Amino acid sequence: MSVSAEASYRLRYGGQVVGEPPAQWTEVLAQQLAHRSVRRYRAEGEVSDETLSALIAAAQSAPTSGNLQLWSVVAVRNDARRRRLAELAGEQEFIAQAPLFLVWLADLARARQVTSSAGSSTAEGADFVEAALLSFIDVALAAQNASLAAESLGLGTVFVGAIRNKPLEVAAELGLPPNVFPVFGLTVGHPDELAPTAVKPRLPQDAVLHKEQYTLDAAHLESYEDVLNGFYASEGLPEGWAKRVAHRFGSVSGLKGREHLRAALLDRGFQLR
Amino acid sequence: MSVSAEASYRLRYGGQVVGEPPAQWTEVLAQQLAHRSVRRYRAEGEVSDETLSALIAAAQSAPTSGNLQLWSVVAVRNDARRRRLAELAGEQEFIAQAPLFLVWLADLARARQVTSSAGSSTAEGADFVEAALLSFIDVALAAQNASLAAESLGLGTVFVGAIRNKPLEVAAELGLPPNVFPVFGLTVGHPDELAPTAVKPRLPQDAVLHKEQYTLDAAHLESYEDVLNGFYASEGLPEGWAKRVAHRFGSVSGLKGREHLRAALLDRGFQLR
Repeated sequence: MSVSAEASYRLRYGGQVVGEPPAQWTEVLAQQLAHRSVRRYRAEGEVSDETLSALIAAAQSAPTSGNLQLWSVVAVRNDARRRRLAELAGEQEFIAQAPLFLVWLADLARARQVTSSAGSSTAEGADFVEAALLSFIDVALAAQNASLAAESLGLGTVFVGAIRNKPLEVAAELGLPPNVFPVFGLTVGHPDELAPTAVKPRLPQDAVLHKEQYTLDAAHLESYEDVLNGFYASEGLPEGWAKRVAHRFGSVSGLKGREHLRAALLDRGFQLR
Repeated sequence: MSVSAEASYRLRYGGQVVGEPPAQWTEVLAQQLAHRSVRRYRAEGEVSDETLSALIAAAQSAPTSGNLQLWSVVAVRNDARRRRLAELAGEQEFIAQAPLFLVWLADLARARQVTSSAGSSTAEGADFVEAALLSFIDVALAAQNASLAAESLGLGTVFVGAIRNKPLEVAAELGLPPNVFPVFGLTVGHPDELAPTAVKPRLPQDAVLHKEQYTLDAAHLESYEDVLNGFYASEGLPEGWAKRVAHRFGSVSGLKGREHLRAALLDRGFQLR
């Protein structure tokens, strides 16, 4: 795999200058910088049980606050179920095409059960925003490890936030008990070499990395708009970055149903006190 | 680095049987499974600017929903500031000892600014729980990449959720504007070889991995209690897993101030609609 540090930086930042890459370069860094979203999968080619086990071992190896392990995951391989989930997630066909769809869950049910087995009459702490946040962080750390592990095995992945468009329907499809919430999906499969995807340039480092204290310099955002417009144009996409962000946040309709997320969390037992 | 798959599985699951590791094993998987929390750092040994840049490049290479990049990070090296942050985070001395403390931020300020620069009169979408969740997920995916990248370079890290004990004080210390919230910290430094840490066994895979639909089998939790009690005893720690979980969630006092997280988020502009 070992792409050089210089080449990796160039692709990741779309040619923007970001300072010297380090003298020491690792397989891990090379794999991370080469990340790209894969939404097209070869028709043949399953993901074996051994590979699935490795992805979950990677996920479980991620840090978890106080070893609480406030997450679970459902591995969906059944065709009909993937098709139903694809429909619930904004009719994204690639979910039905990928051989494996992992649905990552914020799981406070297990901790509540363990708390009660330890003789506590309530698990009041789990009613707070803090507990929900702990579970969201835990599941994201775990899933990122699984995604990178999959990429290191030559597989392609993409995160699917759109399962939050209809979280209650997704919960019903997966038989989730109260206090377990579907946070995002991750498709896993063998990339279709006929439809390769490019590394997407990110904001210049100075826009996200602050030294000692936070500063916000609008100039970074303007230079990025230029870089990203070039990238989108090369992909045949019409819109720039600012317009895309504005579509998402400019009005409630950009949330595509996710404006009901709070109500859905409450419905599933995440009390957000 | 390349520890074998079998040895990695054995350590990560404390000898529990979890099925066959995959035939294909990668540097990435080996690095992930070898993760351990490092809270003791060598007194000498800085983290260079080039290394910091590599960690941030790794973080920025993580997936981000719709390329929104709803996070930022403050790199704190200043001794006095690290000491103040150590105090705010429950007097955890290792924050002052590590040469670098990264404070990871959920950042809706940049997206609001970009939305307004694109001509939108409001950024109403950013007022919802969904926007906050997007930023929490984004920052966790990014930070996990940075942590693994650091480990691949021979550095040690540990996540610090305790900055949420006093998030408003942390925000003031770092000069955070509205709509930017400190989610967790990450210490980075050269591990003290005189105080090595062990790989912590996780729940058996069957407890977190569900096939097609969710099931919860209490037997997994009992077997884990035994495994983990053995681990804690070997580290000279008195309590088992269930008691630790119960301490955290059995009552509000286990949250150590984080029961005010919702109010703090609202105070900083995260409206959680």
